[in-house]
Formats: sequence, C-alpha cells, structure tokens
Amino acid sequence: MLMEKMISSADEGQTCSPLAGPGSGPHNRGAVGFVLVHAGAGYHSESKAKEYKHVCKRACLRAVDRLRAGALAVEAVTAALVELEDSPFTNAGTGSNLNLSGEIECDASIMDGKSLHYGAVGALSGIKNPVLVARRLLSEAQKGKLSAGRIPPCFLAGKGAQHWAASHGIPPCPAEKMATKFSLSAYRRNKRKMEVAERVEAECYQTKRARQAAENNRSACLDTVGAIVVDQEGNVAAAVSSGGLAMKHPGRVGQAAHYGCGCWAQNAGNAVPYSTAVSTSGSPFLVTEDCVLGGVIVLRCCKCVEDQTSQEDAHTLVEFLWSHTTESMCIGYMSAQDSKAKTHISRLPPGTVAGHSLAIEGGVCRLGNKSD
Amino acid sequence: MLMEKMISSADEGQTCSPLAGPGSGPHNRGAVGFVLVHAGAGYHSESKAKEYKHVCKRACLRAVDRLRAGALAVEAVTAALVELEDSPFTNAGTGSNLNLSGEIECDASIMDGKSLHYGAVGALSGIKNPVLVARRLLSEAQKGKLSAGRIPPCFLAGKGAQHWAASHGIPPCPAEKMATKFSLSAYRRNKRKMEVAERVEAECYQTKRARQAAENNRSACLDTVGAIVVDQEGNVAAAVSSGGLAMKHPGRVGQAAHYGCGCWAQNAGNAVPYSTAVSTSGSPFLVTEDCVLGGVIVLRCCKCVEDQTSQEDAHTLVEFLWSHTTESMCIGYMSAQDSKAKTHISRLPPGTVAGHSLAIEGGVCRLGNKSD
Repeated sequence: MLMEKMISSADEGQTCSPLAGPGSGPHNRGAVGFVLVHAGAGYHSESKAKEYKHVCKRACLRAVDRLRAGALAVEAVTAALVELEDSPFTNAGTGSNLNLSGEIECDASIMDGKSLHYGAVGALSGIKNPVLVARRLLSEAQKGKLSAGRIPPCFLAGKGAQHWAASHGIPPCPAEKMATKFSLSAYRRNKRKMEVAERVEAECYQTKRARQAAENNRSACLDTVGAIVVDQEGNVAAAVSSGGLAMKHPGRVGQAAHYGCGCWAQNAGNAVPYSTAVSTSGSPFLVTEDCVLGGVIVLRCCKCVEDQTSQEDAHTLVEFLWSHTTESMCIGYMSAQDSKAKTHISRLPPGTVAGHSLAIEGGVCRLGNKSD
Repeated sequence: MLMEKMISSADEGQTCSPLAGPGSGPHNRGAVGFVLVHAGAGYHSESKAKEYKHVCKRACLRAVDRLRAGALAVEAVTAALVELEDSPFTNAGTGSNLNLSGEIECDASIMDGKSLHYGAVGALSGIKNPVLVARRLLSEAQKGKLSAGRIPPCFLAGKGAQHWAASHGIPPCPAEKMATKFSLSAYRRNKRKMEVAERVEAECYQTKRARQAAENNRSACLDTVGAIVVDQEGNVAAAVSSGGLAMKHPGRVGQAAHYGCGCWAQNAGNAVPYSTAVSTSGSPFLVTEDCVLGGVIVLRCCKCVEDQTSQEDAHTLVEFLWSHTTESMCIGYMSAQDSKAKTHISRLPPGTVAGHSLAIEGGVCRLGNKSD
C-alpha cells in the first residue's frame, strides 16, 4: 500500500526557486536562507486548512525576517516556532491539548547544526513559548560550564524547567491564557468519552480487547509543529514543539523533547558531505505501533560550484521534502529572496489508508552566496 | 592515544563459559541465560573497588535467580537494577547525587528486546527504585491502549511520574532514606565549592574562562548503573539507572532516561541477524564535549547449530564486552550455569589519559538450549 509521489514529479510548479541550469539564471541577490515549517500532520478539513496555511505563512515570514537581518539558523528557526506556538490552532504553546488533569504541559526541543548543541524541555507548564526555554538552554550551554565546573543542563522537565525559565528571565504565563475555547471543550468532550469508555470497559470481561477496539482520537492529537532552516552561512537548525497527546498523564514527555527523536540538525563536516535538518511529528516510538501515524520535514544542503571557470561564487543547493502517513499535513516554505511563503496541504490520495500509506513531496531551492 | 585491549587477548581466563570446540564440551544443563552489569564508569579507588564488586556480584545473582525461575530477560534485568539502585555506593536510587536544591531526582529506563517496548522516568523524586517505575510503564504499555483509545505513557517526568507510580501501587520513599551520609556530605562540600567558585568568578573579568578552567567533579558523578540480559528463549533486555550529575538543576533529565541513549535492546529479527543489548553511562550528548567520559556494556547473541548432523540442540552464543574512557569501570557477569558471578574493575593502563583513551574487554559465553 506504499504510495510515493516522487520529489521530481510532485514538485512541478512548487519549488520556491527551481534549480536553474548552469549559467542560465540571474543571481539570487539577497537569497540568504531558507525555511520549511509544518503546522501538524493529522487531519485537516477544508475549513481548518485556511487557518493552518495562514500560520505557516506567518512562521515562514518571521524566520525570513530574521535571516534577512543576518541572524543565524538557530535564531530564525526559533522565530518560526514562536509563531507556530502562538497560533491557537496548533497543538503547541497556546491552544495545546490539555492533559488528564486539565493542564497544559508542553514538550519542545531545538538543535543547532553548527555546534551540535541541543536544548529541550518536557512536560513544561505555564510558559507561553516552550521553544524559547529550549533555545535558552541551548545558548546557555554554549557559554560553557557553570560555576565549579558543573555541566549546564540541556533537558529540563516539569517544575524544574519552569523555575529555570523564571530564573533566566522568561516570564510565566497564566494557564487560562494558553487554553482556548476549543481546547477546553475538547477536554470536556474527551473526559466524558473516557468516563463512558471506562464504564463500558468495566462491564466488559475482556478489558484488553475493549481497550484496543476503542476509537482513538489520533486525528486531533498530532498537530505538533516544527521548522527547519538554512542560513546565509549554510548553517542548519531544527526545532519542534508539541502540546502532546490529549488526556495524557501529567508528566508525560513526548518525542518532541527527546534527543534524536523530535528534531536533528547537523552541518556538513568531516565525514558528512551534506548539512541536514529534520523535524518530526507523530506517536513516539512508532516501532511498536501496528499503524504508524506521523509526519516529517527534511532538508539537506551543500555548497555547489556550477562552473569552476567562471567568476560566479559558489551557491548553496537546498533539497527539501515533507512526508506523512496521516491523512494530511500542512507545510509552508520560503527562501529569503521570495516575497511570500508558499503553503500547501499535502494529502494522501483518495482510497489510500492513513497509517498504511505514505505521501512524499518536496523541491529544490538555490541560495545565492552572501556576496552575490 | 587510542588504546584497545582486544576481546580475544583481554579475555583469557575471564569468560564465564569459554566457547567449547564442536562436540568437546559437556551439555550446559540449566544454562538458561546470561547477565552483565556495571556499577559505574568513573574512578574507583582500591578501597571502593571491593564494595563495587560486591554489589555487581549481588546484582548478577538476583538476575540469575530470576532466570533460573524461568523469568524473561526484562524481569531479570529489573532484578539486577534494583540491587544496583539499593547499594548506597552507586549513584542510582539510594545514595544518588543530590541536586542544587539538595534533593534526589533520578533517571531510569528499560527496554524489552522482544517487543521493543520501552519505559522511562526522568527527574523522579521520592521513589526508592526508579527502575521499577520504568518497568511498570513498560508493562502497562504492553497491555495496550487505555480507555477511550488513549496511548499509554512510556516516559514520565517529575511530579507526574511520582503520582503515576503511587497510583500503580509503587510506594513513596522518604527523601531522608535515600540520601546517605556520604551523599549529604558531598552535597555540603559541593555547595561550598560552588560558593567559592562563584565568588572567584564574580571577581574575575573573564567569567567564561574561569568557568571552563574550574576543576570539574566528574570522577564522582558517573556512577550510573546498568545491566543487560539474555534469557532462556534468547530474548534480550537492557536497563540503566542514574542519580544524574551532582548539583544539577532540579528537573534536569539525563541520558539514562532518553530513548536510544541510556539503553537499547532488540531481538534478532527480519533484517537483524543478532540480538543486541546495550547500556551506557556518561555525559549526555558527548559529541560537543572536548573530553569524552563514559562507559558502556554491550552484548550480542545468536542461535547457533554447531553440527547439523548430530542430535544436539542449537545453543545460544553470547558475545559481550565493556568499554570505558573513564579511569575505571566496575563490571560483573554470570551465566545461569555459573555458581557465582565474576567481577572485575577494568582500568585504563598506566600513563593513558581518561577522556582520551579507551579500554575494551569482553568475552564469549555459550548458553545451552532450554531442553538440554
């Protein structure tokens, strides 16, 4: 049941800056970076699609604004994430799913491909933008050791994370400002559903079967957001943020906070010919699930010299893709020479089954050298 | 500066059950499993060595007791970890390092190679045996979905983890029972050292340099414990438990709790010819450290048929090793046919430098078939 739209065919008319043949294109003046974001892999009705596209567009713009101002990838990716978190429509920051106790607890992580530093928070309450705490953990770690040679933290969870944020000037946010009408009514609906399910299960001898058969509420719970960025120096960065599963147990940490699970970024180096950035969304530890629901955005890039005899500077070639096994995924992308972001709701083709089919689409983008 | 003792040479006289030539050995009656444990990679003085060997010996015995009783790998590895956590000499469970606030917060994880299920806790306070909570998360996840189709948690942190444990019958343990005279005096010493360092740094213009130059207290902070097991069916399991870094920020989650970082176990399967189990110890995210301090225990095993024409049943061949870049590492191992565990303090050779040299030692062990 595997379905793949190949990059080359799926991408017609969608690349932000189609790869020009040698010597054929104009210089990409001001093309100082690229960003790809997603606002969740799940199910997007036509009515929701517009909102999701809007937030992807704004997130791309935020990142590109930073890139144009000369910011590095890790700054730009943070700016995109803040916008995605601030949308009440995404399951990250404001509007996150509520847990079993009716609280919001967020996971987020960020990775800098240049230094390979990583920062993450798990089960974090009362902070409007979890990615800012992850970002601050990363930048504090880059300053080196703490007093008496102590290694700075890169992953903080729960109350400890909240206190660390406060002591680093990140203000708390009242819970009622992060919950939305929608998230509160979803919570009440889920709570009732759980109570009914538990009554039914209690009456049912084969509890395990009842558990397995119960309808699960996956479509609403996968709106993790993410972004990946290349800056003018060719550095990459990746970030991810999630409110986690609806009705999760308090303290639950999802894959968005896990090192090597939620995001990865690594500049080209000794043994690595490409710079790579990845941000994922989906059930943690998919290996044991019978039906795999998730999404991913990926880019790789390298410096290229098209014509070694000409005076033209080297440019950066960015290949990017998004892939999902959910019914749909909303993405946006933009390079710094574009005047606006392209957004797109990628969908599995009719007749295919979520969790058993796969959509892959993508494109290429050529970034001019800083000195172009 | 790389130093390797090769498995074959380092292992003389140390294999628990040297690989016999075809047809030469007796049947390994009752050889229904194998366990390898470690009580920390760091620096072990001669005086500490005895205590560490003792606890490794007891941990091996606990695991083998379970294996002889027919338990699967995941049960046996839990039993070993409980013993390692209960020792006041290891930095796990009782005797763990205190954090900046003078509290104990533990990380632990466990993985079942058969189901690939994984359970973990991070920054967990007030529970005597963190591995039991990780183990319970794993077994609850194996029961399938929760009411209303909710996916059960596999990683819980902080207060949420503590509450989950209580609601699953794992009793709380008063903080004062988990701290030891040694851990309390180390805390007071570290606190004074920090205060002095901070005064000196405040007077020092180049704060960052002072931070970097400050003596770090690594030798005492790497006593993470771990165990890996093969059972009579050839299933593997791995587990790890740690009190984390001394004077860490509350809420800090270390690599012992991270999926794919602290431990890994995977049975042989379709594309995987060997079953593998790994448990690690060391600074998280070593890639950015200038000097890499850590340790690891590894095993791989496969079913072998030596002589296809004879009636002899297939046996399981276990290859195992331990490796560390710290000055020393205390390990123990035992197969179910051994009457007692072998323990060993592995040390870097004189003249080599911790963090820049590597010791590798190991052995092989042949497990008879259940029906032998």
